[in-house]
Amino acid sequence: MKYQNDLILKAAWGEEVSRVPVWLMRQAGRILPEYREVRNSLSSFKELVETPELAAEVTIQPVDILNVDAAIIFSDILVIPDAMGLPYVMKKGIGPVFPKKIEEPSDIKNLRVANAQEDLHYVLEAIQITKKRLNGRVPIIGFAGAPWTIFSYMLEGSGSKTFSQARKFLYTESKLAHELLEKITESTIEYLKAQIDAGVEIVQVFDSWAGILPPDQYKEFGLKYLDAICNSITQVPITLFAKGAWYAYEELAQLSCNTIGVDWNTKPSLARELVGSGKTLQGNLDPCMLYSTDEDIIAATKNMLTSFGTHKYIANLGHGVYPDTNPEKVKLFIDTIKNYKF
Amino acid sequence: MKYQNDLILKAAWGEEVSRVPVWLMRQAGRILPEYREVRNSLSSFKELVETPELAAEVTIQPVDILNVDAAIIFSDILVIPDAMGLPYVMKKGIGPVFPKKIEEPSDIKNLRVANAQEDLHYVLEAIQITKKRLNGRVPIIGFAGAPWTIFSYMLEGSGSKTFSQARKFLYTESKLAHELLEKITESTIEYLKAQIDAGVEIVQVFDSWAGILPPDQYKEFGLKYLDAICNSITQVPITLFAKGAWYAYEELAQLSCNTIGVDWNTKPSLARELVGSGKTLQGNLDPCMLYSTDEDIIAATKNMLTSFGTHKYIANLGHGVYPDTNPEKVKLFIDTIKNYKF
Repeated sequence: MKYQNDLILKAAWGEEVSRVPVWLMRQAGRILPEYREVRNSLSSFKELVETPELAAEVTIQPVDILNVDAAIIFSDILVIPDAMGLPYVMKKGIGPVFPKKIEEPSDIKNLRVANAQEDLHYVLEAIQITKKRLNGRVPIIGFAGAPWTIFSYMLEGSGSKTFSQARKFLYTESKLAHELLEKITESTIEYLKAQIDAGVEIVQVFDSWAGILPPDQYKEFGLKYLDAICNSITQVPITLFAKGAWYAYEELAQLSCNTIGVDWNTKPSLARELVGSGKTLQGNLDPCMLYSTDEDIIAATKNMLTSFGTHKYIANLGHGVYPDTNPEKVKLFIDTIKNYKF
Repeated sequence: MKYQNDLILKAAWGEEVSRVPVWLMRQAGRILPEYREVRNSLSSFKELVETPELAAEVTIQPVDILNVDAAIIFSDILVIPDAMGLPYVMKKGIGPVFPKKIEEPSDIKNLRVANAQEDLHYVLEAIQITKKRLNGRVPIIGFAGAPWTIFSYMLEGSGSKTFSQARKFLYTESKLAHELLEKITESTIEYLKAQIDAGVEIVQVFDSWAGILPPDQYKEFGLKYLDAICNSITQVPITLFAKGAWYAYEELAQLSCNTIGVDWNTKPSLARELVGSGKTLQGNLDPCMLYSTDEDIIAATKNMLTSFGTHKYIANLGHGVYPDTNPEKVKLFIDTIKNYKF
C-alpha cells in the first residue's frame, strides 16, 4: 500500500526521512474529550475495546486532532490473557484486575493458546475498519504485551508494587513458568501475525515490567521470548519497548527488531551508545514535561531531537501520555517536532 | 564505644574486615513471628513505631534470632512528614496514606521544620533503650527517607504507579518544590543528628523513588539534597540507597557518603565500575531469591560475594525482605555469608 505519510515506516527501516516522525504511546484515549465522549456512551472500557466500529473511531481521533504520523489500534495488552481463558476487568481507579489468577499448575494446563481469528476477531475487525477509513493517510501500529509482562499480570492478578508473586514463581516453578511463557509467546506471535494480515504495517511489543527483574532472569524469562517473537515477525518492522530495562539494552540490540523504545530515565546518548548504530530509537520525553510551560516544552523537545539526531529516530514520550495532560500541550510537542529543521 | 562486633562500621569506613558483615533491609518486622506477636498486641503499626519499649524490642529481635551484624531501629521514613505537620496512617493492604496531602502553596508554608527532640522523641528513646539492651553486641543503624522520596509521598498522599502528581509539581512549581525540599532536608539533617546523639553509629538514607525521575531532574531535586545531608553528617558513616537510580551512580559516588546501596537490577560489576573504588557497596541479592531452594540460595549468595569482593562491601538484599519470606531462608542467607572463606 502507498501512504501519503510513511515517515514512521521509513524511520523504522532505517531509511532517510524528510523530517522526524512522531506519535504518542496512549495517544488513542484518555486525554481527548472526543475519546471520553465515546467511552462514556458505553458501560465499560472493555466494551469499547470489543466494539470494532468505536475502537476504530478512537484510533483515528489522534490522527485527525493531534496530527500524529501513525495510528495505534485502540486495544489493551490484556486481550491476550483474556483470549487464553483468563478474563480481566478494568476497575476504575485501580486498573486491570483478574477475578481468577494463576495459582496452580492446573491453571496453566487449562489455558489455551489464543486463536486470534476467533478470540480476538474484534481487534482484527477494528484494524480493517481503521485501515479503510484512514485510506492511506498514515500507517497503523499493531501491538501486544511482552510475554514476561503478560505473565506478571496473570500471576499477580493485578498491578503490584513489587510483583513478588510473579517473580517468586520464576524461582520456585521455573519449568512451569517457561511452559506458561511459551503458551503466551505462541499466542502473541499468532496475534501479531493476524494483526499484520488485517492491515497493521508496524508492531510494537510492550514489556512494561521488564525493569523489575535482575539482568540474568530477564535474559532467561524475558529476552528469550522477545527473541522468538522478533524471529517470527519478518513482514513488518517491530519495536521493542522494555521499560526500565536499561541493563538489557545491549542484549535487546542483538535481537532482530528494528526499533528500541527508550524510557525517560535513560539519556539519549547512553541509549545510542548501548544499542549501537544498527537500530532505530524511539522516545523519550518525560510525560510530565507536558505539564510544563510552552517555552519549557519547546526547549525540552528540541533538546530531545538534538540528542537523538534525526536519522533512525522516531519521536515519542518515554511512557504513555498521562490522562490529565492538556491536548494543546501534546499538539505543541508534535508541532515542535514537525517544524524542526535539520 | 567498643563493640563486640563492629564489622559493619569497619566495612563502611573502608577498613579491612575478617569477614563480610551482613544485615537485611526490613529485618526488624514482618517476617518474624516474634515481631507479629508484638505488633498484634497493639492496634496499629504507628502505635508500635511510637512506643519506644516495644520498638526497641522488635529492633533487637533480628540480632537475637537471625544473628545479623547490625540492628536497624524499627521506625518508618514517614515519621518526618508526620513531625512536620502532615500525619500518615498505615492502611492494611494499601500502605501509608496521608489524609491531607500538599495541594496549595499555603500547605507548604504551614509545614514546620521538625523538631526531633520534641516531635520524634519516641524514636530517640527507642534508640537509647536499644543501645542499653544491646550493650555493645552490634552497632545500631539509624535512618531517614531521602527528601525527594518524602516529597513524593507528601504530594501524592500515598504510593503511586507513576508519581505523576509529585513529578508534575517539579515542572509547574519548581520554586515551591525547592522550598518544600529544603524544609524536608533541614528536618532530616536535625533528625539524623539527633539519632546519632541518641546512639546510632551509622545512618542510611532511603531514596525509594529515585528511579522515577529523569537524570537531570534527579540532579536538581534529588542529589542536591542528598549532598546537603552528606555534608552535614560527618560523625558516623552514611549510606545512600537510591533505588532504581543506576543512571546516577557516578554522581552519587561524588557525594561525601561512605556506602552506596545497590538494588537487584544492577550487576555488582557495573555498580563497582560506575561508583569507582572509593566507596563501600551494599546489596544486592533479589529478595525473591529467598523463595528458592536452599541449594540455589547458597549458590546465588556465594556468587554475590564473589562478584562484590570482600573489601569495602556490606552484604544485604537489593531491597527490603518481603513479608512472606521464611525466616529459615533468611538465616541460610546470613550463615552462607558468615561462613564464606576468603
